[in-house]
Amino acid sequence: MRSPVREIFRKVDLSAICSFAGGYPSAETFPMEEIPGLSARVLEKYGSKALQYGATQGVPELRQALSERYAVPPENIQITTSSQQGIDVLTRILVDPGDVVLTTAPTYLGALQSFRAYRADVRCMETILDDMETCPDDRRVKFIYVIPDFNNPSGETMTLEQRQAVISLAEKLDCIIVEDAPYRELRYSGRSVTSIYDLAPERTVHLGSFSKIFAPGFRLGWMTGPQEVLEQVYVCKQALDLCPPVFDQYLALEYLSSGALDKNLQKTIDLYRRRRDLMLSLLDKYMPEGVSWTRPEGGLFLFLTLPEGMDTVALYDRALAAGVAYVAGSFFYPDGSHRNTMRLNFSFIDINRMEEGVRLLAQLL
Amino acid sequence: MRSPVREIFRKVDLSAICSFAGGYPSAETFPMEEIPGLSARVLEKYGSKALQYGATQGVPELRQALSERYAVPPENIQITTSSQQGIDVLTRILVDPGDVVLTTAPTYLGALQSFRAYRADVRCMETILDDMETCPDDRRVKFIYVIPDFNNPSGETMTLEQRQAVISLAEKLDCIIVEDAPYRELRYSGRSVTSIYDLAPERTVHLGSFSKIFAPGFRLGWMTGPQEVLEQVYVCKQALDLCPPVFDQYLALEYLSSGALDKNLQKTIDLYRRRRDLMLSLLDKYMPEGVSWTRPEGGLFLFLTLPEGMDTVALYDRALAAGVAYVAGSFFYPDGSHRNTMRLNFSFIDINRMEEGVRLLAQLL
Repeated sequence: MRSPVREIFRKVDLSAICSFAGGYPSAETFPMEEIPGLSARVLEKYGSKALQYGATQGVPELRQALSERYAVPPENIQITTSSQQGIDVLTRILVDPGDVVLTTAPTYLGALQSFRAYRADVRCMETILDDMETCPDDRRVKFIYVIPDFNNPSGETMTLEQRQAVISLAEKLDCIIVEDAPYRELRYSGRSVTSIYDLAPERTVHLGSFSKIFAPGFRLGWMTGPQEVLEQVYVCKQALDLCPPVFDQYLALEYLSSGALDKNLQKTIDLYRRRRDLMLSLLDKYMPEGVSWTRPEGGLFLFLTLPEGMDTVALYDRALAAGVAYVAGSFFYPDGSHRNTMRLNFSFIDINRMEEGVRLLAQLL
Repeated sequence: MRSPVREIFRKVDLSAICSFAGGYPSAETFPMEEIPGLSARVLEKYGSKALQYGATQGVPELRQALSERYAVPPENIQITTSSQQGIDVLTRILVDPGDVVLTTAPTYLGALQSFRAYRADVRCMETILDDMETCPDDRRVKFIYVIPDFNNPSGETMTLEQRQAVISLAEKLDCIIVEDAPYRELRYSGRSVTSIYDLAPERTVHLGSFSKIFAPGFRLGWMTGPQEVLEQVYVCKQALDLCPPVFDQYLALEYLSSGALDKNLQKTIDLYRRRRDLMLSLLDKYMPEGVSWTRPEGGLFLFLTLPEGMDTVALYDRALAAGVAYVAGSFFYPDGSHRNTMRLNFSFIDINRMEEGVRLLAQLL
């Protein structure tokens, strides 16, 4: 199945409308001016090896830098050609057709696509704590997939108790947890919660991404996890693309180790915080009664729930005609339910068009 | 299974020995000095979209440029994150466990790894023309995989008659042909043979690569083929990595459309021609009787056959100890046969060490 989100971008000229669809970071956060200098420095420092085939696990210097940043041994880091690839590779090595993948719901559409591609039986836990009691001791559950920080699409963050419940469930099922954390460093308020990986490194694969802290055009992510999983990922990566993009890895390394990444990250957080705050205040101002939404502490999204019986899939063409775009929430549920929900992205839209967009959306509802 | 070729590079410091292993292009062919300028120009011309998520099929400007270069409609071009990924994706969408993939032998190890990963039944045709008569009308054959130009590892090129025989066989079996052509533009002598894609576009998927005409560190390839195959590849690519590296695609575009690629390609061809000629003359000079080898008209490899009964796998540790490396030829046969063969790469080794390497190898044999 084609991704409905990517198809929106393929078919519609979104520049003409107020788009809360997509999950793109703001181009304002890209280090445009630094790239030519970074390119020159990479070639000066690393010479031709920056343009040659590289190690399947990723270039050692970048693994070392990530190791220091995240306090993980470098041998436990696998660079991936995007964290989407990380999800896909894990599904490929862990799941045979009919095996079960448990996810919270709503959840990332790109993950659901990989799960479906490998014919996984995707079951969702809307409330993990409840399911803890009822979930059968099922050997076919190969992993639990969660986005604990600023979930895509809901924007919600799991509490420490919820994370511990996921770990207990994984222990009970003797399965792995895949912790997808592309937004973890984009926190605008509240306090950071310990990652599931830090709580249970022996059974957690943690996926990180450069897409939101550097730029998505480089297609770079990383993975840390138990050695026996990484070993299988390594073999799979050899067949998949031999190695991640080498030049891009050195660009990321230079960007990270020079301190530019952290400086830019602070600016990115400030920018997105203002956008989130504006978005929430506009929703407060314009949305009719009966509509509710999440109040994310970070990330790129919030999730709107309309009164029961409304259908955001059916509404979509009228929204586009009115000049506003969103992604229907039901796409993020494995069973296509919750048709009265929608995902709104607040990172990509021109901040000057946010008010118009929310107003149009409110009128439509 | 780990790739024996990549494992050699992982475990041994090849800088200390004369290595004919690996399949790396020469760093002398990389446009080192042009990269910073290309980077600046890409950002000037394309702005932030060069760092943003891109189209799953590849950025339209690069598809357009490839379309003009290779006379293929742009809508029939899918950019891949390396042509290795092209092989892997095709196997993923076309092959169920137990399905048959036919290959010539010896053949590219990375392809065999992907075939095995999807549990294909890999059958090899040592001589296609012979097999034409005996091959059963087997519906389980999903595709025929060939490297018609300067085969890796043999260096041999298929004649027009052999290509036509492959097409006849594919027609008989009603299957697709995967034409892997990463070396096609690296011809040092002789005359170009029409590609299988040009002979039978309706049933051929042609894989191209930027690794040997730009630089492998960018992980960029492309694929052209029948629309119904490309449609499946597109859906698979969405789940796999959303899109190929965007910045790298624009670098390749600028490199290609400015004419720098063709200028550099001519220099690359001249460089490799000298290396091939030297390599052949050194083999003539040093190799003992009973050893034979191929005389490639292009590409990066030639293939050595030792007297029956010799074993290049068993010999390998002694070779390394003596200071010379190769890849045992049996790795390139699906059944691990032909243990009296070896692949020699002539593109990567320091040209000043070639004579020493061939001499050491000859002494060993």
